Amino acid sequence: MRYFIEDLHKFVGETVELKGWVYNTRGSKKIKFLLLRDGTGICQCIFFQGDCDEQAFENFTSLNQEACVKVTGVVKEEPRSPGGYELSARSFEILSDSIDYPITPKEHGVDFLMNHRHLWLRSKKQHAAIRVRSEIIAAIRSFFDGRGFTCTDAPIFTPNACEGTSTLFSTQYFDDKAFLSQSGQLYMEATAAAFGKVYCFGPTFRAEKSKTRRHLIEFWMVEPEVAFNDLYDNMELAEQFVEYIVQRVLTNRQQELKALERDTSKLECIKAPFPRLHYKEATEIILKENKEFVVGDDFGGTDETIISSQFDRPVFVHHFPTAIKAFYMKEEPEDKTYSLSCDLLATEGYGEIIGGGQREDNLEILEKKIKEHDLNMEDFSWYRDLRKYGSFPHAGFGLGIERTVAWICGLPHVRETIPFPRLYGRLHP
Amino acid sequence: MRYFIEDLHKFVGETVELKGWVYNTRGSKKIKFLLLRDGTGICQCIFFQGDCDEQAFENFTSLNQEACVKVTGVVKEEPRSPGGYELSARSFEILSDSIDYPITPKEHGVDFLMNHRHLWLRSKKQHAAIRVRSEIIAAIRSFFDGRGFTCTDAPIFTPNACEGTSTLFSTQYFDDKAFLSQSGQLYMEATAAAFGKVYCFGPTFRAEKSKTRRHLIEFWMVEPEVAFNDLYDNMELAEQFVEYIVQRVLTNRQQELKALERDTSKLECIKAPFPRLHYKEATEIILKENKEFVVGDDFGGTDETIISSQFDRPVFVHHFPTAIKAFYMKEEPEDKTYSLSCDLLATEGYGEIIGGGQREDNLEILEKKIKEHDLNMEDFSWYRDLRKYGSFPHAGFGLGIERTVAWICGLPHVRETIPFPRLYGRLHP
Repeated sequence: MRYFIEDLHKFVGETVELKGWVYNTRGSKKIKFLLLRDGTGICQCIFFQGDCDEQAFENFTSLNQEACVKVTGVVKEEPRSPGGYELSARSFEILSDSIDYPITPKEHGVDFLMNHRHLWLRSKKQHAAIRVRSEIIAAIRSFFDGRGFTCTDAPIFTPNACEGTSTLFSTQYFDDKAFLSQSGQLYMEATAAAFGKVYCFGPTFRAEKSKTRRHLIEFWMVEPEVAFNDLYDNMELAEQFVEYIVQRVLTNRQQELKALERDTSKLECIKAPFPRLHYKEATEIILKENKEFVVGDDFGGTDETIISSQFDRPVFVHHFPTAIKAFYMKEEPEDKTYSLSCDLLATEGYGEIIGGGQREDNLEILEKKIKEHDLNMEDFSWYRDLRKYGSFPHAGFGLGIERTVAWICGLPHVRETIPFPRLYGRLHP
Repeated sequence: MRYFIEDLHKFVGETVELKGWVYNTRGSKKIKFLLLRDGTGICQCIFFQGDCDEQAFENFTSLNQEACVKVTGVVKEEPRSPGGYELSARSFEILSDSIDYPITPKEHGVDFLMNHRHLWLRSKKQHAAIRVRSEIIAAIRSFFDGRGFTCTDAPIFTPNACEGTSTLFSTQYFDDKAFLSQSGQLYMEATAAAFGKVYCFGPTFRAEKSKTRRHLIEFWMVEPEVAFNDLYDNMELAEQFVEYIVQRVLTNRQQELKALERDTSKLECIKAPFPRLHYKEATEIILKENKEFVVGDDFGGTDETIISSQFDRPVFVHHFPTAIKAFYMKEEPEDKTYSLSCDLLATEGYGEIIGGGQREDNLEILEKKIKEHDLNMEDFSWYRDLRKYGSFPHAGFGLGIERTVAWICGLPHVRETIPFPRLYGRLHP
């Protein structure tokens, strides 16, 4: 029988054996404290002189940070202890030592920590952030699987650089050249016709030579697409989705949010419906604070923050100008200078976490847009087929995982939201 | 309110509106039948002359395969109907037409179908296989999430070609060269020390110039890794995992398995524990039928089939010779010519679906193995850290999704197990 720290509440009064690593130690002559971590939590183990094995008590002084140990003892309820339980220890054994562990409780520079990412993940806040990430991933899957969506993964290797090659990675694919996907959307439009409600969820790649706190080279994205949904159905789905994720993390990851010192009151109010602003309304808000903003342009980070700071929940901006959106975005029938697009801006200045909208389902207009955007008609042969054979209104969106994790965890930089971040200038470890 | 075909059982006697595509039509002067598909299922809609809108009845003759339509009618229970329910139709509307849909009920060549993969996915068997795939993915996530595993995605871009470059894709990563991951295992060993029980689940890439029914260039893999597990714990986890996946598909995807004409009795007996053979025992079985097999070699496809045909459930082969396994596989302490490795062979000749084992946790032996395998010590600097700072016994495995889908669906070729397959010679659509 294997025991894990997060399950100790089930074994109060019982003798258990825990295996893990030394997180910290302290003690006096007669009593020693060991903070043991096993990956599922941290448990305080208390060694009283006389109460525990004499040799073990002696050996305690030589316990190094991150040494691998086995501890046996009795589980006790203790509200002041990290996880609410502690171990009244009887004996322990060092399974393997750890000499000069590089990450000590003193301050280290970010570069040093990133070079030791494989070890840094053991630290409390890093551990908490990745556990929240894992919960968010599980929530995303549950949300869609529970609503009859079919997971239809898009390929990573794509034959065409559909929207320009400037930020695309490429590779030699035997005699061809393949580009690494930046979005599965076009493929999801095909599978939406086959399965009705679909999503893909995988890594995407952007070769951007920029170092900002919001960008990774390799990041994960989930992209649902729904047949017969319009722009408004799409926003409704997106707000239910975001509410579900946030509320589930609040329910299941309280301890991690506490370790991250997150102000959870800011998350408790993330409930649908979210406010919705037409692009025109949004620009009016921006212009009050940023006189230099040019109506018709896309928003910068500062502009997004100006808008989102008005609200205590995420806010949709919809109907962006057609001119600044991708060729596949459907035009507003009443006024073609606007598109049936929507972005969702997170609270607290975390910026855009969702981008999406209704897709152009009219073959003639789509082909006109492909030409206007100077794209190669032949590359879109299969995509145009979707408008030839039973074309259907449809809409979808993409949610960036790392930005969502940063927002929910309250982290200043996306580099701590993924186990092994890939940034401009960083490919290690 | 949106209605979907798979939910019709909730609306017997009620009038509903369905949106979808024409799968097939037939009829006489007084009665017409429409098989409507909406991605969640197929529903028979019956139009009686006089009972439904006269104009609709007239228009019926012009209904093309895959035209997008809206049908209104009353839900009736009908055991002989595809999903158990049918629609007594009142009216219908063509939302958009479909002229000369390329995939007709006649036979098409595989190449033609693969070129039209974006449309082929709408066909009954393709639809069923991808729905089973989606269920398998959900099952994998539930299994690990429900057992306290943390999802810790491994990076796709890796700095070193750890085990040789011959089957690796590479890309220019700014001033560096990056290789596309073939396995997240080494990274999972790092996160296992931080989180105890972990898994990664994502696409992997293999540049193999071979056309077999078991290989894809781009395929998905799930790789769990558990701290303090040994070879035997690992096999126990793997067999519970495979049982869980198969039984869940049997429970939730009966209709799809039927569409695939799968003999489900073969799946019903997939229950743990699975038989286990030492490599030596396995070779004895092989030699009875394949005299040319050389003891000490790895198994070929035929050899795997010889072994698996002896059993009605998957079979483990463990303790492969150290010489044919990767450098990180731990040696059997009692006899170092064998390794603490295990493969799981599926039933019915579907071959290896799992490979894994216990990892070398002794720094000295690991470094010796790195040298023996002619690998670059510096490339493994971070990996060796895991043995320096609190080294721990651990084991894990990788399960290939596409082979598992092929096996459970009873498909002869992996190309139909993923929405958009990437094969040697195929990068489209």
